[in-house]
Parts: sequence; structure tokens; C-alpha cells
Amino acid sequence: MCTQFIQHFNSKVPLTESEQELLQSHLVYKKYRRKQYLLHAGDICQSFAFIEKGAMKSYTLDEQGVGHIIQFGVEGWIISDLYSFLTGEPATYNIDAVEDTEVTLISKNAHDRLLLTMPKYETYTRLNFEGAYIAMQRRLTSMISLSLEERYEKFRIEYPALLQRFPQHMIASYMGLTPETLSRIRKRIADK
Amino acid sequence: MCTQFIQHFNSKVPLTESEQELLQSHLVYKKYRRKQYLLHAGDICQSFAFIEKGAMKSYTLDEQGVGHIIQFGVEGWIISDLYSFLTGEPATYNIDAVEDTEVTLISKNAHDRLLLTMPKYETYTRLNFEGAYIAMQRRLTSMISLSLEERYEKFRIEYPALLQRFPQHMIASYMGLTPETLSRIRKRIADK
Repeated sequence: MCTQFIQHFNSKVPLTESEQELLQSHLVYKKYRRKQYLLHAGDICQSFAFIEKGAMKSYTLDEQGVGHIIQFGVEGWIISDLYSFLTGEPATYNIDAVEDTEVTLISKNAHDRLLLTMPKYETYTRLNFEGAYIAMQRRLTSMISLSLEERYEKFRIEYPALLQRFPQHMIASYMGLTPETLSRIRKRIADK
Repeated sequence: MCTQFIQHFNSKVPLTESEQELLQSHLVYKKYRRKQYLLHAGDICQSFAFIEKGAMKSYTLDEQGVGHIIQFGVEGWIISDLYSFLTGEPATYNIDAVEDTEVTLISKNAHDRLLLTMPKYETYTRLNFEGAYIAMQRRLTSMISLSLEERYEKFRIEYPALLQRFPQHMIASYMGLTPETLSRIRKRIADK
């Protein structure tokens, strides 16, 4: 229960046994079945989720009802609508389980309390944001500056595990492409 | 000298007078002339810059030598190659001044020392990363899910000041478009 989360925390900011117990007392463990929602757009994101086991995705629906995948999450990743979580405004993103999934949840209340009472939690949070910001900036840089083929190659090299876990139409959506365009790109790469 | 930075800090995390002096002792004030570089890609990003006055941009060059703007910065914004700053790896981005610019610099040494000695600095850093991450995620969401016209309209509404400060060819680059495409989009919007 919450084992991976505690390990992840310890690997970034080592905890004493009593700090570990304090942290543990703020966590909730929850299971989601495939296709079950962790968050609906329009609701307020009450928790962020650390994935212990399984796979999730966050996505937004455009005005035509087409889904656009914003983020994938697998074991050891955090998934959330951060803006909604931090501000209490309605969420822009839906989050659902792509496989049966188990998560450690930290509620907004727990998050705020830990920030006030546990300096190491603030350090952990800062380190996570640093990492998330850098990953997001690199993704955006690829989108702006690389060709479609280069982007797909980069994704394949950086996240081989995701290609195994998520179907092609989701990978296409994550890259902002139609499945047909992604399929053409893959064919061109294979032909080389 | 460094006034805006201290004000920005105080507005997020209020400081006592002695904390303010401690912080001040870690800052460096510097002026850049228009077109002068704050950072060259390939060098290590030694400082992050808080813009006191003026405007800067960060950009990457692709293999064809075409520049792609990653970030704009004006008064009150932070600009940096964060990955390089945090890891000590060579920078991916160039940063230069679009106007004569004055910045407050925080070196990596000062940053690390402040994180160790001043808990409020860690809080300030976390809050900045939260904000930067959310802004980046929204930009990426727009890129993936909106039409070009919708993206330009959103940019225009969210950042009217940037449209005044940066020439159209830079706005186009920031949006991942050619100047011709942006010009067509603006015409279509004007015709409506």
C-alpha cells in the first residue's frame, strides 16, 4: 500500500521512520478499473495521483468532441489536473484508467498540511515540479522545432515503455496527429 | 537595483528585513543591450534571470539553422535554460535581449545556498515552478487541441502585452508557424 510512492519520495528526499509514518497518515490508496474515471472535466481536482501500478491518461475534449491526450501516466508517475488542484477551479482535463490501476492519492487538504508541517515535503514537491516543467518544455520544444518523423523517433527513444502500453491511436492523439498521419510516419520510418 | 525581484518575492512569500538583506546579498544586477546574449546554446546556464526592465527571448536552432522561439520574457518574468541550470549540462536554448534589458541574476551557487539556508526561498521556487508548469501545460494543450485561429485568439487575449512588444515574425515562431501563415490567420480574423 503506497509503497512505490514512499520509495519515490525516499529516493528524492530521504525520510526518517517517523517522517515516513507522518507522510503515510496523509495518503489514500485506491483502485480503478479500466475505463474508470479518476477525474471528470468540470469537476474540481481534489487529489493528485501517484500511479503504483497500471496506466492512466489525461485528456481534453475540443468543441467537436474530439479527445486530445495531454499526459500519459504509468508506474511511478504523477497524474493530475494541476491547475484545478492548486486553484480549486473546475478541471479542464479528464483522467481515466487505460488498464486496471492502483494509485496513491494526496488530497488538497493533505498537500496543504504537509507543506506547512514537513519541509521535506516542500522539497519533494519542488523537485517534482522541476522535473515536470523540464519534461513539458522539452515536449513543447520538439513540437515547435522538429519534423513529425523526428518527433516520433524522439518519443520512441525517450519513452519506449509507453509505446508498449498505449495503443497507436492514443500515441497519435498525444502527438497532436491523426492516427492516419502517425501510421504514414511509421511506414516511412520502417521503409528507410 | 533588483527592486522588482524583491517585490515579486515579497508578493509570493513575505520576507522580514533581515531575510531581504540575506536574499539581496545573493543577487547580481546586470544590463544587456538589444541583441546581446545572456546565454549561448552549448554553454552551461550559470544563472536564471528575473527581468527587471526590457524584453528577452529564448530560442532553439534546428538542423537547418531556423530559430524556434520557446519563451518570451518581459518585466517580472523569469527566463533561463532550466535543464542546463539544474543539471550543469550544456544548454539547448539561446537567450538574447529583444530590447535593452536589465535583469536580476541568481547563480547556481546562490540558488543552492539559498535552498539550504532559507526555507522561504524553497517556497518561492516551488510556487514559481507551479506557475511555470501550469502555463506550459496550457500552451501545450492549446497546441494540441485548438485550431490555428483559436490559438492566436487565445494568445491575443491572454498576452496582449506581448503582441505590443514582440514583432510578428517572433510571435509566429513562438506559435510554431511561418510568418506567412500567421499573417493569413490575422487577415481571416480581421475579415470576420
